Amino acid sequence: MPANRLKVAFLGPPASFSHQVQSQLQIPPPSSFSLPHIIGRIEFVSNSCFLFLQAAAESFDNTDAELLPHVSFADAFTAVQQQVADYAVIPFENSTNGSVVQTLDLLADRNALYTDVEVCGEYYLTVHHCLLVRKGTYPSGWAGYDGSITKLYTHPQAWGQCDNLLSQHFKGIERQDVSSTSKAAEIVSKEMGEHAAAIASKFAAEHHGVDILKENIEDRADNTTRFLIFRNTRVERPAQLEFEQPSTSTEATTRKTLISFAIDHSSPGALANALLIFKAHGLNLTSINTRPSLKRAWQYIFFVECGRTPSDENKEAVLKALDDLRHATEFCRDWGSWKDQL
Amino acid sequence: MPANRLKVAFLGPPASFSHQVQSQLQIPPPSSFSLPHIIGRIEFVSNSCFLFLQAAAESFDNTDAELLPHVSFADAFTAVQQQVADYAVIPFENSTNGSVVQTLDLLADRNALYTDVEVCGEYYLTVHHCLLVRKGTYPSGWAGYDGSITKLYTHPQAWGQCDNLLSQHFKGIERQDVSSTSKAAEIVSKEMGEHAAAIASKFAAEHHGVDILKENIEDRADNTTRFLIFRNTRVERPAQLEFEQPSTSTEATTRKTLISFAIDHSSPGALANALLIFKAHGLNLTSINTRPSLKRAWQYIFFVECGRTPSDENKEAVLKALDDLRHATEFCRDWGSWKDQL
Repeated sequence: MPANRLKVAFLGPPASFSHQVQSQLQIPPPSSFSLPHIIGRIEFVSNSCFLFLQAAAESFDNTDAELLPHVSFADAFTAVQQQVADYAVIPFENSTNGSVVQTLDLLADRNALYTDVEVCGEYYLTVHHCLLVRKGTYPSGWAGYDGSITKLYTHPQAWGQCDNLLSQHFKGIERQDVSSTSKAAEIVSKEMGEHAAAIASKFAAEHHGVDILKENIEDRADNTTRFLIFRNTRVERPAQLEFEQPSTSTEATTRKTLISFAIDHSSPGALANALLIFKAHGLNLTSINTRPSLKRAWQYIFFVECGRTPSDENKEAVLKALDDLRHATEFCRDWGSWKDQL
Repeated sequence: MPANRLKVAFLGPPASFSHQVQSQLQIPPPSSFSLPHIIGRIEFVSNSCFLFLQAAAESFDNTDAELLPHVSFADAFTAVQQQVADYAVIPFENSTNGSVVQTLDLLADRNALYTDVEVCGEYYLTVHHCLLVRKGTYPSGWAGYDGSITKLYTHPQAWGQCDNLLSQHFKGIERQDVSSTSKAAEIVSKEMGEHAAAIASKFAAEHHGVDILKENIEDRADNTTRFLIFRNTRVERPAQLEFEQPSTSTEATTRKTLISFAIDHSSPGALANALLIFKAHGLNLTSINTRPSLKRAWQYIFFVECGRTPSDENKEAVLKALDDLRHATEFCRDWGSWKDQL
């Protein structure tokens, strides 16, 4: 393996992923995934269980990259911090379900574990969910569905993305969270005693040999997850990727910046003053999130994303805003800037 | 039952609640709870499974109120909107785990279902969690715990509140979400084939006859949930409760206000301009939350709480701010003002 090959960390259970990829490609089991081997199968390596793999693979399309599954977002972050991985691809928000709280908690970095990690890009991935049942249990399909399902399985994020179907047809039905949508499909494939269903991808249905009772059950056809791509600020990277190229002032592409900060809540107007700084430097606020500071109850860490179209006038805008923010906040951190991919 | 008796809606499974309350009090099964009957038992009617009941009961202490369990926050909201209940007591945020997303989604009120519902008060409730196991499985207690638990059960909100213990001692252990912490204790009491544990209250342990392996496992001793109390704006209430009394300008009590709004995201500076309005009228921003608008992807509904110490000068501040906000936003809604109880 070439020494300069990129290593990309993402969330995924190693065993099931490597098993699935291997079984489709009929190659010896890899300890990690080689992008050129799977990229041709990416339409088959569908979403849900493969959501994070797909995002990682697509973000690094046309790159000699190796995809490293990690069991948690924190582990993927640690891999970047410790330079075991060059990049990590982590979901930040979903267009239907909102922010990914676990990712915000990593960005809060309350124990200063990830001081060298920064955002260098973003990737948008559209997802589709299916309602899956054990083979043969509903031979007449959704049209003949009799309301007899008594238990539902999926990953916690998926419930909120399928709320319309769930509240119309599965109100009051017991829900069990499992670690992945693929795991949900697997459980349903083995359930014999009850009428269970899983929310997972088409791919998971094929892989686990279960029936698709209903396709595309997500509330919104444009149900999209935005991933952030993280790298280590201290590493000389082996290649400059397309999404990392610095914007020039002749381009129309917006650049986004993520800044986290905390304020003195006892000081009236402190939050408004901090937010004013963005406006004063021509930075348009595009998202605000908060998490508990965990230092004192009812105090928060704020995560502000702002955007600007690069120009000769505003090329220092983020630096100047950060300078002002340092005086107006208890702490603030620049998580980096990147090209808007929307 | 007197016609003017207050009806208070909260989240709780009717069957298990009425069964438990009844069995403790040895009275005939009630279809709803009579506050004077249970208030003396409130120290026994502990948190977790009884969290919402406890908050509802304590908020209406010394009041002739009837507590009505509802199976979802939405059902409790509907009860207030349809004047079936006078009040609803709904969790808004937890000091460790952050905002309650389901409540924010109700407040987004995207289908205008709750146009007559407003906030009239708040209540702070401190919670404690325990790690529970089947009777007799760990006779030497936590000190002799051998790491053999293979599965954990609790309500989704509880995981994040016990993260320290979970990440230190239960990393990678399978987690199953269940509908309540009490349900988790019940499942564990019946598990025979595996080493399972539940996160739930002391009360749940007693009720379901399971052992407490470890007490007070929450990350922070001050782990507190803030509830909002909702009423119908169109109803003449039978009694003015203490927390509803209007503040006078001679009191030092802060009054809080909750306002939701959406902005035109294509207009640069629109969010900063909206937030500036609060500052311009002397309203201190105390919390900001966002949820997807679900009209267009990556557009949000904002929930801003602001506070002020009432004075003759600022008694019109909220009305004036709302007036300005109506010009600066796509929509805005006043969710009401109430006495800060912190």
